[in-house]
Amino acid sequence: MPRAWTLASRPKGTPTPNDFALISVDRPELADGEVRVANRWLSVDPYMRGRMNDVKSYVPPFAIGAPMDGGAVGEVVESRDPSLAVGDLVQHMFGWRDEAVGPAAAFIKLPAIDAPPQAFLGQLGMPGMTAYWGLLAVAEAKEGDTVFVSAAAGAVGSTVVQVAKAKGMTVIGSAGGAAKGEWVRSLGADAVIDYKAGSVVEALGKAAPKGIDVYFDNVGGDHLDAALAHARPRARFAICGMIDVYNDAKPTQLKYLARLIGNRIQMRGFIVSDFMSRTAEFYQDMAILSGTLKREETVHDGLDAMPDAFLGLFTGGNTGKMLVKL
Amino acid sequence: MPRAWTLASRPKGTPTPNDFALISVDRPELADGEVRVANRWLSVDPYMRGRMNDVKSYVPPFAIGAPMDGGAVGEVVESRDPSLAVGDLVQHMFGWRDEAVGPAAAFIKLPAIDAPPQAFLGQLGMPGMTAYWGLLAVAEAKEGDTVFVSAAAGAVGSTVVQVAKAKGMTVIGSAGGAAKGEWVRSLGADAVIDYKAGSVVEALGKAAPKGIDVYFDNVGGDHLDAALAHARPRARFAICGMIDVYNDAKPTQLKYLARLIGNRIQMRGFIVSDFMSRTAEFYQDMAILSGTLKREETVHDGLDAMPDAFLGLFTGGNTGKMLVKL
Repeated sequence: MPRAWTLASRPKGTPTPNDFALISVDRPELADGEVRVANRWLSVDPYMRGRMNDVKSYVPPFAIGAPMDGGAVGEVVESRDPSLAVGDLVQHMFGWRDEAVGPAAAFIKLPAIDAPPQAFLGQLGMPGMTAYWGLLAVAEAKEGDTVFVSAAAGAVGSTVVQVAKAKGMTVIGSAGGAAKGEWVRSLGADAVIDYKAGSVVEALGKAAPKGIDVYFDNVGGDHLDAALAHARPRARFAICGMIDVYNDAKPTQLKYLARLIGNRIQMRGFIVSDFMSRTAEFYQDMAILSGTLKREETVHDGLDAMPDAFLGLFTGGNTGKMLVKL
Repeated sequence: MPRAWTLASRPKGTPTPNDFALISVDRPELADGEVRVANRWLSVDPYMRGRMNDVKSYVPPFAIGAPMDGGAVGEVVESRDPSLAVGDLVQHMFGWRDEAVGPAAAFIKLPAIDAPPQAFLGQLGMPGMTAYWGLLAVAEAKEGDTVFVSAAAGAVGSTVVQVAKAKGMTVIGSAGGAAKGEWVRSLGADAVIDYKAGSVVEALGKAAPKGIDVYFDNVGGDHLDAALAHARPRARFAICGMIDVYNDAKPTQLKYLARLIGNRIQMRGFIVSDFMSRTAEFYQDMAILSGTLKREETVHDGLDAMPDAFLGLFTGGNTGKMLVKL
């Protein structure tokens, strides 16, 4: 019997393993136009925390007791649609389970780019697109800019660092601890801030004495305030994630918000699905950069490990993309 | 002897009358190209609070002991420049004093718009331009939008309300107390929030059950948070002032900041001097609207009253533009 993770209860604050339950699910016959996919790689991403709350948002909340979903890569094992054949590798949103069944249109064949299949859940998938469009379209970063990026060792942040360097920018990345910092530096970052070692606002002042032109925000909170404190005139902020508040009902405290005015700072929130129509453009540019980009993965093994992998996102447990391999 | 106000000491938090001192100043002979102007109207504006701190900002700090400056309207009483004649009414930045001397180029003849001279310190001056460009250029407000504006009874806010109504928008204004609310309603606002009567976030939810497209921020703090809570997808915020923090070292607390992301909200700080090159365009449009726009002034009498007028800005002491008449 296939198995799937469900949300057993809506977490208050930081989720715990008890908020999740692994259940057996039916194995339906395929209807015409449907395919069956054996999942090989499952994605866990910070935005999923938002879906655990019962509030209206840009993606609907998970239903209690129903299989959860999320990014996945798998192999077609049965097909009743001419567009997909057994053996095809596909990406889709029926994650958090070992087997997926649905209409062929919900499964996208992996494009012909020389990269391992799980890269399409990371640098060549949703996190990569988030980094690419957030940096270049939302924050309008350009050659010569000084870019600050938080969670620079994460799936999104590590791609921001590398795309920014490839496009001729100066990059300051923040990450927690020496090992992650070392890795961020190896990606080409000009300076690295260890946010666990002291005040972010002071460290950023030292790393960017002339200030920053762009801030790519993955975390909110102190990092956002530090970016406000050191923003140069007409700085642009791409607000991508606030991992700081996903689990926390406390308000964000900003001491430097009024600098928005005198420095004409622009802050823009965005979600990557707004850029889906430009995916071909993304693949094209990333295929060119592909040889020069580094990828790192933190891999958990087996469907049973899904909640641990997910919870690890909030405790700094990953370098690069966090994945579960089935 | 002419007299001028100086900053006697840099205020900590809210300024007090002791932070100001009225001094006598020299009455220099005019050099070639200079004019002497008897000031008739002096402006006090919230941004002046920022200039009392010794920090780098978009306008330099006031120097201790030197005459302060700010917007003023006066009459030329002596001229050694062919461009200005005795009797001309001019606007300039040598405020906080009864007599101004300087190069003719620093004094601008009032344009030929049918309005009293002091209007060029308010609706037809810096506050009016701030309202006009903030609403139409920075927040890109357009016909059909629902606009929320804080400090709607102030010099800037009351102009935002009226320009927005003239351009076919729905307007919700926030002001403190019943009398100001009444006045804001008389300007055409569709709904008025009395921020002194309870929670702004709740009141805005009732006034704009479908949310807001534009927020014109004059105050920051709770009002900004309420706007974040009720922003519709792709809402645009023009961040003009944070009167809340001018006097206050406490951080701004935002519970709803993460809504930036899912709703793709854009926040932009601005200062009106960025739009100076478009002043002719502003006068042209305002001259057309002029017959329909209401103006209110809170007038203090005499140079001695300058500090009181200024301090009144921070205690809700003004309806419309706060002025001192000499």
